[in-house]
Amino acid sequence: MKIQFISGQLSTEFFQESISPKELSNHLGEFVTLHGSIYKIRKMSGFAFVLLRTPRQIISCIYGEFSEFNLKSISEESCVKITAIVHPEPRAKQGFELRLKTLQILSSPVEQCPIVIHNKELPISLETCLDYRPISLRNEKNRAIFQLQAGICSGIRHFLDNHEFTEIHTPKLGASGAEGGATLFTLPYFGKEACLAQSPQFYKQILTGVYERVYEIAPVFRAEKHDTSRHLNEYTSVDVELGYLKDFAQLMQLETAMLSSIFSFLSENYKAELELLSIHLPKINQIPVIRFSQAKSYLNFLSSEKEDLSPEEERLLCEKVYQETGSEFIFVTHYPTKKRPFYAMENPENREETLSFDLLFRGMEITTGGQRIHSYEEQLAKIRRLGMDEAVLKSYLMIHRYGIAPHGGFGLGLERFLTCLAQLPNVRYGCLFPRDIHRLTP
Amino acid sequence: MKIQFISGQLSTEFFQESISPKELSNHLGEFVTLHGSIYKIRKMSGFAFVLLRTPRQIISCIYGEFSEFNLKSISEESCVKITAIVHPEPRAKQGFELRLKTLQILSSPVEQCPIVIHNKELPISLETCLDYRPISLRNEKNRAIFQLQAGICSGIRHFLDNHEFTEIHTPKLGASGAEGGATLFTLPYFGKEACLAQSPQFYKQILTGVYERVYEIAPVFRAEKHDTSRHLNEYTSVDVELGYLKDFAQLMQLETAMLSSIFSFLSENYKAELELLSIHLPKINQIPVIRFSQAKSYLNFLSSEKEDLSPEEERLLCEKVYQETGSEFIFVTHYPTKKRPFYAMENPENREETLSFDLLFRGMEITTGGQRIHSYEEQLAKIRRLGMDEAVLKSYLMIHRYGIAPHGGFGLGLERFLTCLAQLPNVRYGCLFPRDIHRLTP
Repeated sequence: MKIQFISGQLSTEFFQESISPKELSNHLGEFVTLHGSIYKIRKMSGFAFVLLRTPRQIISCIYGEFSEFNLKSISEESCVKITAIVHPEPRAKQGFELRLKTLQILSSPVEQCPIVIHNKELPISLETCLDYRPISLRNEKNRAIFQLQAGICSGIRHFLDNHEFTEIHTPKLGASGAEGGATLFTLPYFGKEACLAQSPQFYKQILTGVYERVYEIAPVFRAEKHDTSRHLNEYTSVDVELGYLKDFAQLMQLETAMLSSIFSFLSENYKAELELLSIHLPKINQIPVIRFSQAKSYLNFLSSEKEDLSPEEERLLCEKVYQETGSEFIFVTHYPTKKRPFYAMENPENREETLSFDLLFRGMEITTGGQRIHSYEEQLAKIRRLGMDEAVLKSYLMIHRYGIAPHGGFGLGLERFLTCLAQLPNVRYGCLFPRDIHRLTP
Repeated sequence: MKIQFISGQLSTEFFQESISPKELSNHLGEFVTLHGSIYKIRKMSGFAFVLLRTPRQIISCIYGEFSEFNLKSISEESCVKITAIVHPEPRAKQGFELRLKTLQILSSPVEQCPIVIHNKELPISLETCLDYRPISLRNEKNRAIFQLQAGICSGIRHFLDNHEFTEIHTPKLGASGAEGGATLFTLPYFGKEACLAQSPQFYKQILTGVYERVYEIAPVFRAEKHDTSRHLNEYTSVDVELGYLKDFAQLMQLETAMLSSIFSFLSENYKAELELLSIHLPKINQIPVIRFSQAKSYLNFLSSEKEDLSPEEERLLCEKVYQETGSEFIFVTHYPTKKRPFYAMENPENREETLSFDLLFRGMEITTGGQRIHSYEEQLAKIRRLGMDEAVLKSYLMIHRYGIAPHGGFGLGLERFLTCLAQLPNVRYGCLFPRDIHRLTP
């Protein structure tokens, strides 16, 4: 039989014979081919501005006497391929204007969008924005948020890969019953009951015994009934775990260095998006650290909740720390043992508190972390003291039983971090397709 | 209040004052500090070999008269910190041997592992291997498999980032009913019914309208009752989608280039793992391509299944193509419309077949891809013809209605790809913690 072949050599014209928009300024005076969606048409007297939406830039083109097509043939959200002259124009922001010559329509909408997407700010409610998410994301600012999300993930991976962390993929379906039950989604699974992972906690601990340093960026699920501006029922967790830990302060150093590295990465690679969203990247050479008990007295015991910080306290603490130190981050350490999970290592000098921390950023908790118990006897004793079911923890306890180094780690909520970074009013704006107690679509 | 600070400057001694094992050869004749787990102790007459497991290397150390601790104080799977002299030794593979001087125990196992993990091959069944996964993964070869998995993901991201793809995070929980129901896991969700995503299909298509080129590496869930060596109920899907598509062959070119780029990345960065696992990376400058109907007649219509290839046919086809062309990959194109999803674009010259493809590798399907319908009228007509519920597809259809460029993409099953690459006998060996119809733990 005669067999044909697909070549893996991508020609320079592989992507639609178009040039990359960022190379435009290298083509002054030349004809170029570009493709994109018509974002906005603004008719003037005798000419028109046609804004072309390309993956990371909105490019302003001029329709005029030099154009060889009828402006009426196109509508907003048409997908087109154009040729144009890159005409030097000192008055234009970029130093040139694109004079449209030919235009080929690749696809056209059936009707106009029911919401206006090409304004700087969308004059619609959060609900409407989310209901129309497939098209409201086409708004220049909305989509920039998730370009930054991609940049944050790249920045994290660069940092962790450079420090010899191994990326892992752990299961999101598991047997019910290992950790607390109230916030677990459960489902029928071939005659058994399964639950959705609320964190990769056990797996990342297990894998420090294999790779020493591991991380995962993946969805986690919390069946919490909260209906607030800071809760999602599914979110993306950045989980980091480190074996051969010296002390739990090391974890905070690692996270500080990681955040600092993310910000460098963003400022190098996402200048346009940061500018568009008016994001000021916080300074982060060092982060202040305060003990939980100190924080409570610092806040004059504002909340009746004794073993945790209330959202109001978190906000206030951030404000006060910012005024005092100029830092927009604050580590709170040594949370009460009662409020931390069974695997949290207790402070040997005071068993009432754990070697744990939260990281607050601009008023919100974005990370929980700490050192874990690695001694079998200690872990088993604690499980029994808490009246937990040892049997369901059997495979997890293999690491304690057959040897594991001192270890610890942290989890960073990607959407919360992004929300605080971009100073969005609701965490739902920091998630492409948020899931909350009311919303499962789109 | 006096506030302390955590610095984000990581000192060179940040990780346990140890040097990175890969730098050992730069320290000939010197004292070094290292940490790791005792993988194996082999007593000889008058001395002993102590194998130290570090994240990517097993390092052979010598215990002898120069050692300042008692060999009896350590056991296999103890986590230790050692000092040693890097003693030049031309007869050793690496050109030196590590002579142990001091040893500090950081943690010790309570008892010996019930399975022997430090042999080249584990003499245990798949079931036992998986039951003891937290420790069987510590075996040198087992863990190398997932170092490669991490390398594959890095290779993919490097390639796609370089080609201006945007990484996305789409929800795994959704409303029931959009796509076929038989293979969906469903669960109660605050008084409604939710289902687990069997692919990010709709979301990645939606997002080509925002970012043009997108990808996601994330878990997907299939409630399939198959109990075979090639099925998992949860797996990691590498999803790629590309807007402004010229034709569907472009997708195969892109995947060929991506695979080629992955192999280059692995051969540069994972030499030791490839060698350890005796993996030969396939040549992949080009991949043969054959139409579905041709493949069927080429195989003399082996299977009674007319609209798909049976696993047996996939194996046989790969064998024949390998003999004829030397390629271990083969694209099969133009699958019957009846067997492809409702969004698959039909061949305008023959509506019975779609502009779609599968990629087979060493006998197994690892990718499904194709061009999608972008015309609203065409998609709506097909939905109605198939008797599907338009209402539940409303938000998905926004892209067709309000404008989307011609687009297409593919999904690569990460575990299957890894399994074929490492020539593992069962896909469960290619997954850290596999989920099948019987297994939800560990």
